[in-house]
Amino acid sequence: MKPFIPSDPDFESRVRASYESLQLLADMDGKIVSLRPGIFHLDIPFSACITQQEGFLHAGIAATLLDTACGFAAYTLMPADSRVLTVEFKVNLLSPARGEYIHTEGQVIKPGRTLTVCEGKLFSIENEKQTLCAIMQATMICIKE
Amino acid sequence: MKPFIPSDPDFESRVRASYESLQLLADMDGKIVSLRPGIFHLDIPFSACITQQEGFLHAGIAATLLDTACGFAAYTLMPADSRVLTVEFKVNLLSPARGEYIHTEGQVIKPGRTLTVCEGKLFSIENEKQTLCAIMQATMICIKE
Amino acid sequence: MKPFIPSDPDFESRVRASYESLQLLADMDGKIVSLRPGIFHLDIPFSACITQQEGFLHAGIAATLLDTACGFAAYTLMPADSRVLTVEFKVNLLSPARGEYIHTEGQVIKPGRTLTVCEGKLFSIENEKQTLCAIMQATMICIKE
Amino acid sequence: MKPFIPSDPDFESRVRASYESLQLLADMDGKIVSLRPGIFHLDIPFSACITQQEGFLHAGIAATLLDTACGFAAYTLMPADSRVLTVEFKVNLLSPARGEYIHTEGQVIKPGRTLTVCEGKLFSIENEKQTLCAIMQATMICIKE
Repeated sequence: MKPFIPSDPDFESRVRASYESLQLLADMDGKIVSLRPGIFHLDIPFSACITQQEGFLHAGIAATLLDTACGFAAYTLMPADSRVLTVEFKVNLLSPARGEYIHTEGQVIKPGRTLTVCEGKLFSIENEKQTLCAIMQATMICIKE
Repeated sequence: MKPFIPSDPDFESRVRASYESLQLLADMDGKIVSLRPGIFHLDIPFSACITQQEGFLHAGIAATLLDTACGFAAYTLMPADSRVLTVEFKVNLLSPARGEYIHTEGQVIKPGRTLTVCEGKLFSIENEKQTLCAIMQATMICIKE
Repeated sequence: MKPFIPSDPDFESRVRASYESLQLLADMDGKIVSLRPGIFHLDIPFSACITQQEGFLHAGIAATLLDTACGFAAYTLMPADSRVLTVEFKVNLLSPARGEYIHTEGQVIKPGRTLTVCEGKLFSIENEKQTLCAIMQATMICIKE
Repeated sequence: MKPFIPSDPDFESRVRASYESLQLLADMDGKIVSLRPGIFHLDIPFSACITQQEGFLHAGIAATLLDTACGFAAYTLMPADSRVLTVEFKVNLLSPARGEYIHTEGQVIKPGRTLTVCEGKLFSIENEKQTLCAIMQATMICIKE
């Protein structure tokens, strides 16, 4: 895939500011670990607050992390005066996720003036072993102010 | 659709106990409002902890609520010695959700020995007006102990 | 749900003309059985040309029928000078489909100026027994000329 | 990703025989172009029989090709005495597909004893230019005889 050229040269500070306004991710202690045109990766520590009844990562929290990573990946390529909203997404859970932390990657597959299609991958990190636990296919929409 | 006959006559206490073990939903102050064979509805109050950067319900939290409602709807029909896991789901966001509380409905469409397909609907309640904000199509799997 | 008011009073002839230009559906001998604002139902006879290796309806043909029904359901509510394209869809296969014919229903859930969200249901009809075999959740986009 | 080890050493002839029994793909003149453990690629020539009302590949036929590629990719890793059925899939349409032929790739992401998760990619080939037109995320189930 060719590298993406962001239309907004200040995309990084715009995306960081938007991310930092999210109470939900701050509550999970989420940290941005990669932020480039079309790409957004974040890490969160694993904790009991984000598990389902078996002690594994709740599928909805997997979706929250994947949607966040995909939404901000799309937002890197949107114009300065725009907002991003999720149109839809689909998640497949591949393995129950547990361990020390969760690494989530969002990647633009097809940018567009209105709609942007993204893929996400969520990994658990346990004893330095990385396991692919969930994948997302998502559509984001650009809203002009 | 015909009413579903649960194989476990004690399904209600089993599902309630499993739901009550979820720290995540307790943190959101989620209450079960309907629990019948193949059906699980829950309400949560709206709060800043569950919003995205615009102040609307985060799409991932919408998925969390829908997945919870669908998972427990499926679990009502599973045997006493089983566990339920999410295989996959798909969410369409129809309207930004905001208001006083969020009402989420999970409904079994097709039960099965291994896989159960469910549909979910998520409504915002604002000034007594109910708005359909998100829909889910999900597959749950029954794991025997 | 409230009935939908089409913006184009001639929606019916516009949708029929578009449907009749589809060689693919003509090849399957597909007939429109209901066409109202936000609703499109079609029937096709079952035949060996549309099966997978087991003799059941191929999952991709199920998607073709559901996508057709959802796309034209959305198109009933679009303006006269517009085209409809599929953004994405998700299909759950509930039961293998076989029998005399296949009945497919498309229904608008949330119309929009740009995006329209639809649900589809596909039924097999065998010995007068109707079985729900597949469901779709889809997003359609309105393209202005 | 590690290479997959098929449990059935004769997987290739088993998968080819199953594919060759598909009238639907034969009608589209589909040819297998890659068949390895966890991988199935096929090509079809473009023709008016598989288009929607605009002359682009019908979204349902895109799903048919992607589902075929994903289903047989999964089937390469299943035991000799098994059958494969589609549980569900999700397709995002990225670009209208048109040209000389359509190349479709199915790839196993996570094999399992019961469920196998796959990804598919569909490309149009026009004047030697390859364009990614659609992506699939799918779940396949292994049925034991």
